Amino acid sequence: MKITIAVDCMGGDHGPVVTVPAALAFLKKHPDAEAILVGREEALVPLVKDAHAGLKSRLHIHNATQVVEMDEPPTSVRAKRDSSMRVALLLVKDGKAQAAVSAGNTGALVMISRFALKTFPGIDRPAICFALPTIKGHTYALDLGGNVDCTPEHLFQFGVMGTLLASALDHNERPTVGLLNVGTEEIKGNELTRRAAELLRASNLNYYGYIEGDDIFKGTTDVVVCDGFVGNVALKTSEGLGKMLATFLRQEVRSGPLSMLMGLLALPVLRRFKHRANPGRYNGAVLLGLRGGVVLKSHGSADTYAFEQALIRAADAVGNNLIQRIRDRMETMMASNGENA
Amino acid sequence: MKITIAVDCMGGDHGPVVTVPAALAFLKKHPDAEAILVGREEALVPLVKDAHAGLKSRLHIHNATQVVEMDEPPTSVRAKRDSSMRVALLLVKDGKAQAAVSAGNTGALVMISRFALKTFPGIDRPAICFALPTIKGHTYALDLGGNVDCTPEHLFQFGVMGTLLASALDHNERPTVGLLNVGTEEIKGNELTRRAAELLRASNLNYYGYIEGDDIFKGTTDVVVCDGFVGNVALKTSEGLGKMLATFLRQEVRSGPLSMLMGLLALPVLRRFKHRANPGRYNGAVLLGLRGGVVLKSHGSADTYAFEQALIRAADAVGNNLIQRIRDRMETMMASNGENA
Repeated sequence: MKITIAVDCMGGDHGPVVTVPAALAFLKKHPDAEAILVGREEALVPLVKDAHAGLKSRLHIHNATQVVEMDEPPTSVRAKRDSSMRVALLLVKDGKAQAAVSAGNTGALVMISRFALKTFPGIDRPAICFALPTIKGHTYALDLGGNVDCTPEHLFQFGVMGTLLASALDHNERPTVGLLNVGTEEIKGNELTRRAAELLRASNLNYYGYIEGDDIFKGTTDVVVCDGFVGNVALKTSEGLGKMLATFLRQEVRSGPLSMLMGLLALPVLRRFKHRANPGRYNGAVLLGLRGGVVLKSHGSADTYAFEQALIRAADAVGNNLIQRIRDRMETMMASNGENA
Repeated sequence: MKITIAVDCMGGDHGPVVTVPAALAFLKKHPDAEAILVGREEALVPLVKDAHAGLKSRLHIHNATQVVEMDEPPTSVRAKRDSSMRVALLLVKDGKAQAAVSAGNTGALVMISRFALKTFPGIDRPAICFALPTIKGHTYALDLGGNVDCTPEHLFQFGVMGTLLASALDHNERPTVGLLNVGTEEIKGNELTRRAAELLRASNLNYYGYIEGDDIFKGTTDVVVCDGFVGNVALKTSEGLGKMLATFLRQEVRSGPLSMLMGLLALPVLRRFKHRANPGRYNGAVLLGLRGGVVLKSHGSADTYAFEQALIRAADAVGNNLIQRIRDRMETMMASNGENA
């Protein structure tokens, strides 16, 4: 199966100098993949001109004259009909690519993909979902920043989408769903969590109950549901902590000649640990709930390595037939909901 | 100066078996301190009977027959007039102790201390504040779970309180205040953050602007303001990540005989790192905004070492004259606000 990915090359903090080399690295490792690089031709052409002929044949440049800025409000985004982000998403809509990847403005990506690729029935808005590593394996957390103002119904829908994703990818037919809160006791939380808990409890999802922040990385549940504000802050705080601990570890290793020698001796161990804990490895969150194709959101500050990870994830999602699997499961779920009713 | 701390011995996930040994360890290291152990006499007496006579003379047991459970709703908490938590706070109110420490129900602690010890003028509710470690030093983050439903005015008041604390403890006359959000661009966030930003911008605080989750541990600002729901989730998520990374590091060190040897050689480095990254070291958050005395909230799951850290922090706050310093600065701030008006 040939996989074609539309790459929004202008998005992110660094733009083409990161996205284009990442796309080249990705193509090199995936001989069955093609990439459509979307953005300003004059910015992209120089960056691919030295690429190997074997790569060039699987790489197409699609001109798009406008760029969605990182801090642009939705109203002005809408007027940019020829933005690299929108054009990349339309390539998916038109079947020219099966997935789009962008490191650009999250709010704009959610909005445009929702209009271009539509959501599944019963799903109001796509949610940003990521498989976070845990002590036990991984957990699907959503929403991580796509929707900063959520209703209880949205949180419930995140539970449905997370369940569908976990069952589609992990062959886990009854994934547990946890609702992120400030405590596990029933009285804890705010109006939003209490009403969302009622909806989840009344559904046929495998609802676990409230979980707390530390349950995420413990892997207490297969799916973690929260509003996009909380999810985004939790995710970025974790990133910051990871970086601080890496700095501390480096400082300890470099604190004197003896420590340096000891650190040097332990280098292979530290290196494996560093690789495992590297946040760049975990780049690329899926916009879950879209029925028209796969959309991956990369961290805005991603470097070449991290952006390549997002492209790999997009190719995996297409290769795994993610959208079709979710659609199938959605139909089964609705049928069984009908039976239960 | 003699420092007396009232210890709510019944609070927390473990109760007296953790709080009493922690109090004994604390007294051993602080020969000028006294402790009033509050709780069920029959549970406390056996735990102190073997203590050294020198400690026993600085240790008093104060009977309290009731216990606030971790999952108790505020209404039933109010009826427990003789709970160890309330009695410990009343000892502070009555001047018999200068500080109270509890690992119990957070909501109850905030509510009872607000009634017993009152807040400073202009401050509606005490906030849970903690000096989190950063790459640069530390940052005062609040609220970390005392107030899950906040108004923009509350967030503004957290900014005032954080400023007062940073200036009182760090001799930093113009600490920077960051407002936690999902992005730094002005359009980002929800109604709450946007309105709080307006209030902070219009004030005479040294308002930095929006910050993101990763700015906390970067130490971008001296004070981090957020609502208690977001703050609590961010804090606990960090805790969970720290534990996961520690597990990963241990797994890498134990992955084979060679790794074990390397890990063993690097043990002093890893041990220093572990000590520095140990979340137990960072236990004990202050209930900021109370004018009647110092109240420290310990993590509910604290072990003896961690609970002792909370007692040390309480003693430090008393020794540093925290309440008086905040009061002095509050008066200066209000006077200068008057001048500016």
